[in-house]
Amino acid sequence: MAGGRATTLVVQKYGGTSVGDAERIKRVAGRIAATAARGTSVVVVVSAMGHATDELIALARQVAREPFDRELDHLLATGEQVSASLTAMALIDQGCPSVSLTAGQAGIRTTGLYSRARIADINPERMRREIDAGRVPIVTGFQGVTDGQDVTTLGRGGSDTSAVALAAALRADRCEIYTDVEGIYTADPRVVPNARKMEEVSYEEMLELAQLGARVMHPRAVELGEVYDVPILVRSSFSDAPGTLIHRIENVEVRKNVRGIAHDTDVAKIRIQGVPDRPGVAAAIFAPLAQAGISVDTIVQNTSLDGKTDISFTVSQTDQDRAIEMVKRIVPQIGAERLDHSDGLAKVSIVGTGMQSAPGYAARMFETLSVAGVNIDMITTSDIRITCIIGSDSVSIAVNALHAAFELDRE
Amino acid sequence: MAGGRATTLVVQKYGGTSVGDAERIKRVAGRIAATAARGTSVVVVVSAMGHATDELIALARQVAREPFDRELDHLLATGEQVSASLTAMALIDQGCPSVSLTAGQAGIRTTGLYSRARIADINPERMRREIDAGRVPIVTGFQGVTDGQDVTTLGRGGSDTSAVALAAALRADRCEIYTDVEGIYTADPRVVPNARKMEEVSYEEMLELAQLGARVMHPRAVELGEVYDVPILVRSSFSDAPGTLIHRIENVEVRKNVRGIAHDTDVAKIRIQGVPDRPGVAAAIFAPLAQAGISVDTIVQNTSLDGKTDISFTVSQTDQDRAIEMVKRIVPQIGAERLDHSDGLAKVSIVGTGMQSAPGYAARMFETLSVAGVNIDMITTSDIRITCIIGSDSVSIAVNALHAAFELDRE
Repeated sequence: MAGGRATTLVVQKYGGTSVGDAERIKRVAGRIAATAARGTSVVVVVSAMGHATDELIALARQVAREPFDRELDHLLATGEQVSASLTAMALIDQGCPSVSLTAGQAGIRTTGLYSRARIADINPERMRREIDAGRVPIVTGFQGVTDGQDVTTLGRGGSDTSAVALAAALRADRCEIYTDVEGIYTADPRVVPNARKMEEVSYEEMLELAQLGARVMHPRAVELGEVYDVPILVRSSFSDAPGTLIHRIENVEVRKNVRGIAHDTDVAKIRIQGVPDRPGVAAAIFAPLAQAGISVDTIVQNTSLDGKTDISFTVSQTDQDRAIEMVKRIVPQIGAERLDHSDGLAKVSIVGTGMQSAPGYAARMFETLSVAGVNIDMITTSDIRITCIIGSDSVSIAVNALHAAFELDRE
Repeated sequence: MAGGRATTLVVQKYGGTSVGDAERIKRVAGRIAATAARGTSVVVVVSAMGHATDELIALARQVAREPFDRELDHLLATGEQVSASLTAMALIDQGCPSVSLTAGQAGIRTTGLYSRARIADINPERMRREIDAGRVPIVTGFQGVTDGQDVTTLGRGGSDTSAVALAAALRADRCEIYTDVEGIYTADPRVVPNARKMEEVSYEEMLELAQLGARVMHPRAVELGEVYDVPILVRSSFSDAPGTLIHRIENVEVRKNVRGIAHDTDVAKIRIQGVPDRPGVAAAIFAPLAQAGISVDTIVQNTSLDGKTDISFTVSQTDQDRAIEMVKRIVPQIGAERLDHSDGLAKVSIVGTGMQSAPGYAARMFETLSVAGVNIDMITTSDIRITCIIGSDSVSIAVNALHAAFELDRE
């Protein structure tokens, strides 16, 4: 895991809860200073303090009915600038030289899509210079600067993505994500009391877990970690517990096949019945939804014998009404028969890289749910995941039953 | 006053009170939109919202005993970024195209002195491009960016200075300073009930008035206006009153000779007695004070016959203790005899460009104060000003007596 340098270089990311007030910022500074004192080079990425972002959004809504996206991005970017400066000050006050860097100063170049920019590239020159001068750079997460010198924000999971991207650009030995949980669990500990914290997990597994409702890390950041092979350690900023390492795991053969159970209760289903089975129909449905920024999750299509098909898909409950409105207009255009929808649904998934090389997991999952009296509404699978859509009132029973059936409570 | 362009270009600056909350920001946006609707090109400079700067300083003090200057500058700069984005949003919402610009985006280059930077130059290219595209640029006041891409703030009077500097760089027809008073008065209306608002005042007069306690505009911004010949209109953001125009006034002969009475009650005096009268002594006293950032105001030195002299000077009451500590150490070094100090003092000044060409003003001032029973502690004069240091409990009597004696209550 060590690079070609003499000293270890670590990128640490602290989320909004970790820098939520002055006391917490001082505590975070203490942790950073301790790492630096051990001779490790540190680059820090911070989110905005606690509810700072929400407060700025509320202010924006007070001055404008629909805040203009460019201005909203410039406004929100100040949240991380405040926490970065405060963290640097606290560090200096504790005797550890430090410097806050805005995204522009840190060389983070982004695309021009306001509120959902992507990182185009990072020029680490200034950060390296600060590290060489013995200062800990504190970089604003969630944002970057376009070629035209405008600020754009990265959207959901932005600060995690900033941290992993910086680690990649700096060829850091590790990216540490500090959060309010102690790591990645075999299931949500609030639902499964004997869920275990995993010592390690592969990128693919984490990606599936993250996409399926384990909200500790955004899938986008995990994906970036995988592409650039950055080991990511997820741990608590409130304890010294060792956390969970997300990294490349080669020897899948010897590992337990199901690694975790994920669930998500924010699920609404829309079903279009009697869709003519011809090319272009799926695009006619899903392209307008994508354009409207509605994220479609599970899609299931069953072709029937009479040249007609049913297409069902899920969206988040927030997007449900807008999605239904759009699909209502699409149904007559594509010559489909009718539309119905249901909410009160949930997703339950089993995830594990080992599953792809061993059969029988789907059968065991369905049987377990059946024995537990849980009805399955939809099923989708990937190489390393099986997902069932079930009633949201059965989530706790289902997750606990699966956790036990796949022996996740044992080492 | 019109430039070579077809349309008029005006720079408007709104202070912290004017953009103090969402409602006020919307009202300011309404005023800007109305100006733009009349076909005038507008560039706006904003301060941080109300107490935003104080709140950021309080936060800084919570995380660090002595917040590091670079980080404090980066922290405080977010205050104006917030109000600039909100103002631009409000304008766009009201149908007037607009764009917020950070100091970097607006091309404001500053020197590297944190918390008291000076504007080095302004590249108005981006602002011109935005104006040509029909957008109103909303620029963050009080700050700029160094060659090394660091943010530095301008210190006291910063946003006024930003506004006048932008007006100069853009060759604007006028710089409008919106504040919570209706203009420049012949004396402080809270002290002199029949003080009159002036229609116009020269740069030199305003400079003396500003330095002497008329806190409406910072002397630094007035000076810049004089150098670049930028007409500055001071007016209220809460009314449509016409305000006071600060500009070049040539025909001083025909004008009333005393234009205004200024006063300042934040005065402490330090006196060094028995100072050897030889070269370098004044520098030995005042250089260390300047280095410590202590602003020395009135300095009076009387040479006596025995080769010894007394040097008195005034500082603000905030700086008094620090100044005394420093001077205590200097007294033995320069072979002076002793040190004493007094507070509870005030400055009262009469100001007017016409005074330089007509004698007798000093005599009339001293006589007026004498008749009013006000004792004079120190006297200093400039070409267009006479200042007396008096007891602060006599300020109201002195200012009213002078206002009447020089007939400032009459047109």
